[in-house]
Amino acid sequence: MAERRKFLLDESEMPTSWYNVLPDLPEPLPPVLHPATGKPVTPDDLAPIFPMALIEQEMSQERWIEIPEEVQEVYKLWRPTPLFRAKRLEEALDTPARIYYKYEGVSPPGSHKPNTAVAQAYYNKKEGVKRLTTETGAGQWGSALAFGCNLFGLECKVYMVKVSYHQKPYRRVLMETWGAKVVPSPSEDTEAGRKVLQEDPDCPGSLGIAISEAVEDAATHDDTNYSLGSVLNHVLLHQTIVGLEAKKQMEMAGDYPDIIVGCIGGGSNFAGLFLPFIKDKLEGKKEDLRVICVEPEACPTLTKGPYAYDYGDEAGLTPLLKMYTLGHNFVPPPIHAGGLRYHGMAPIICHLYNLGKVEAVARHQTQVFEAAIKFARAEGFVPAPEPAHAVRVTIEEALKCKESGEPKVILLALSGHGHFDLAAYDAYLAGKLEDYELPKEEIEEALKGLPKVPA
Amino acid sequence: MAERRKFLLDESEMPTSWYNVLPDLPEPLPPVLHPATGKPVTPDDLAPIFPMALIEQEMSQERWIEIPEEVQEVYKLWRPTPLFRAKRLEEALDTPARIYYKYEGVSPPGSHKPNTAVAQAYYNKKEGVKRLTTETGAGQWGSALAFGCNLFGLECKVYMVKVSYHQKPYRRVLMETWGAKVVPSPSEDTEAGRKVLQEDPDCPGSLGIAISEAVEDAATHDDTNYSLGSVLNHVLLHQTIVGLEAKKQMEMAGDYPDIIVGCIGGGSNFAGLFLPFIKDKLEGKKEDLRVICVEPEACPTLTKGPYAYDYGDEAGLTPLLKMYTLGHNFVPPPIHAGGLRYHGMAPIICHLYNLGKVEAVARHQTQVFEAAIKFARAEGFVPAPEPAHAVRVTIEEALKCKESGEPKVILLALSGHGHFDLAAYDAYLAGKLEDYELPKEEIEEALKGLPKVPA
Repeated sequence: MAERRKFLLDESEMPTSWYNVLPDLPEPLPPVLHPATGKPVTPDDLAPIFPMALIEQEMSQERWIEIPEEVQEVYKLWRPTPLFRAKRLEEALDTPARIYYKYEGVSPPGSHKPNTAVAQAYYNKKEGVKRLTTETGAGQWGSALAFGCNLFGLECKVYMVKVSYHQKPYRRVLMETWGAKVVPSPSEDTEAGRKVLQEDPDCPGSLGIAISEAVEDAATHDDTNYSLGSVLNHVLLHQTIVGLEAKKQMEMAGDYPDIIVGCIGGGSNFAGLFLPFIKDKLEGKKEDLRVICVEPEACPTLTKGPYAYDYGDEAGLTPLLKMYTLGHNFVPPPIHAGGLRYHGMAPIICHLYNLGKVEAVARHQTQVFEAAIKFARAEGFVPAPEPAHAVRVTIEEALKCKESGEPKVILLALSGHGHFDLAAYDAYLAGKLEDYELPKEEIEEALKGLPKVPA
Repeated sequence: MAERRKFLLDESEMPTSWYNVLPDLPEPLPPVLHPATGKPVTPDDLAPIFPMALIEQEMSQERWIEIPEEVQEVYKLWRPTPLFRAKRLEEALDTPARIYYKYEGVSPPGSHKPNTAVAQAYYNKKEGVKRLTTETGAGQWGSALAFGCNLFGLECKVYMVKVSYHQKPYRRVLMETWGAKVVPSPSEDTEAGRKVLQEDPDCPGSLGIAISEAVEDAATHDDTNYSLGSVLNHVLLHQTIVGLEAKKQMEMAGDYPDIIVGCIGGGSNFAGLFLPFIKDKLEGKKEDLRVICVEPEACPTLTKGPYAYDYGDEAGLTPLLKMYTLGHNFVPPPIHAGGLRYHGMAPIICHLYNLGKVEAVARHQTQVFEAAIKFARAEGFVPAPEPAHAVRVTIEEALKCKESGEPKVILLALSGHGHFDLAAYDAYLAGKLEDYELPKEEIEEALKGLPKVPA
């Protein structure tokens, strides 16, 4: 009989709680600091920005946090997502490894992002907020938040980096289809935007400027909150539904991963998959589990950055997070994996990396697209440039298994499809894709901007 | 307890045979005629174009035709596809109707098209063919055939209408990602293409010219066949897996449709869904089942065309098919639903329409996009412009139920996503989408070109 290709859960088997790793960490997470005082931030410090439910989740020591029924109902529009056995890829590689991938590209916005967007929209709505603002670069996060806000009847305003707004109109249209208002940033709608435009009317924008605009908009409107798509603990929490489903599905398959591979930008997609598994490693049930974080050579946060306190945004408006960082002023080269161009990294991932519980590697984008094409030709689905980084390392590990003859089990985080990224595939296929060597001096220069932590 | 949103089949429950409606038709299908002799075509007439397995399927009187195991294995990369209950749409419409949709957008090319592309690639490969050619307009069919050929190791050459080649580069990149060779048509690669270019170097191309190029290419290369993505009996046969799955899923839901709604261009997507259900109508088990075919007002084949023998292609190279037709020289206005711009219609659908077993209506594209936006905001998924026609009529029928208070069960054929069609959504949202009134005279003029059938 043919081996199974797909492991599906019925919606009645969808997890009803998220997994919070905080109480299971071998050492507590370093505190988030107030930049003025150097003291740990309190819930009150965060209240102007976030609804109380999310602030509580950010700091909770509860291992399991119930998913509200209204959020579960929305998740069921596309969840549980499928787990695939990559049998055709295994055959193409002639490897004894058994490769599985958890595919989040089936969501309406096409990635894992709505897992948290929907939850954030729900909690904000519940606490009386009428409107959410956010920034977006390539548009993955913006479209997920537009989707989430639409489902709960919240207004959504997205500040989209101007160069992307013009170069990637499809993501903008997707946001507008779901009813969001999208403006190119810098915009005339905020003080921050107007200031930039006055100095440089042709400024192409940056994620840093867009964050400043979105935060200012939220801060100056009573009915409005700001929403973040990665990095923070509560975002990673919401994403654990991915790994909780995958655990059940791996059980259906009768396998347990030896290696889990994912890409990291802010870290939420991969943490969502691996946290429920790393629980077993931390508890000594699967000590040899390898968790491999893959980042771009063009933005090598874990592999080249120091572990230090830094701002989450370019403008230095946020509290200080202890993380591996390239410095909040670091401007990464324009690689196609827009979601991996962040200077910092989720504190939970940084902590686990510092403790030696997860590994990290970096890859160039031409290597990455070569692997993505191989994957698409074997399995059909066209990966987004971000998870294509993880595809690359999955193939490398599978080929090592071919060398050694070991039938290892590899689980790949395929966080989204590449339907809106085909210009990048076009560039690769036409031989026009460039790699970027990042001079050591450039990182050193950016790190000079690291903030001093008040004693 | 919350009502179910989704009905999934395990891959072990995937149908293993296609359903052939031919033996169940109340009257036999009018024969396909040889244009020179006016006599019914024989298998030998078709052998230069198609592999024998497909020719046999085209004329088979077997009710069930086994799906080859190799095709089943490929189907399992994305099949069975989900059936959704559109609970949020029902709530938005405040209708007592129960709306279900069968969603084919989860396939790697994003539509129902690979159901036949994979089967055609398989049978051609099995009979020693090395290479397939086809034409494509917007690119749905071309990308499905590229996908299918790639999986069975066949070369694939796609003649893509030049104006689409330049305006819709993403579909081209998708085909190339799966290894196909794509050329803008008219091209220098064929006699037919060179002839057109000599007369008009700037010719934007047409589906008719692209068909001529693809057919000539196949006819002048021994190792090459030509492949069609709709209209023919064997194509509709392969698509019945959609309806066979949906029947099982409706059973899981404890419902049976009163109304089935789908869009028709060549007819294969909708026939794939409704044929397994119409079997029950033809057998008297569900006599009041309504099957509503939705076409664009800009290309009103069933609603405005006569039932006559006509060529399948613009150039008049194919055998004569008895179908509702606007004449093979008819050039429809440039609506965004590229897949619905065909002058004719699948003979099986035409026959059933002529017998009064299915209904047909036509809608304008602004009405269609209005409905598509409503659907996307309720259910999340963004429909392609083609099935958005069916979404429109589904909503109309659901609102009639609201008037009458009848809790009818409506099944909608959602044949694909609109990720590559967001320019059309953009035009609609910006108020720039045009409707096209088709003057009666224009249809009359095109119908003058109908071929004379030799006595």
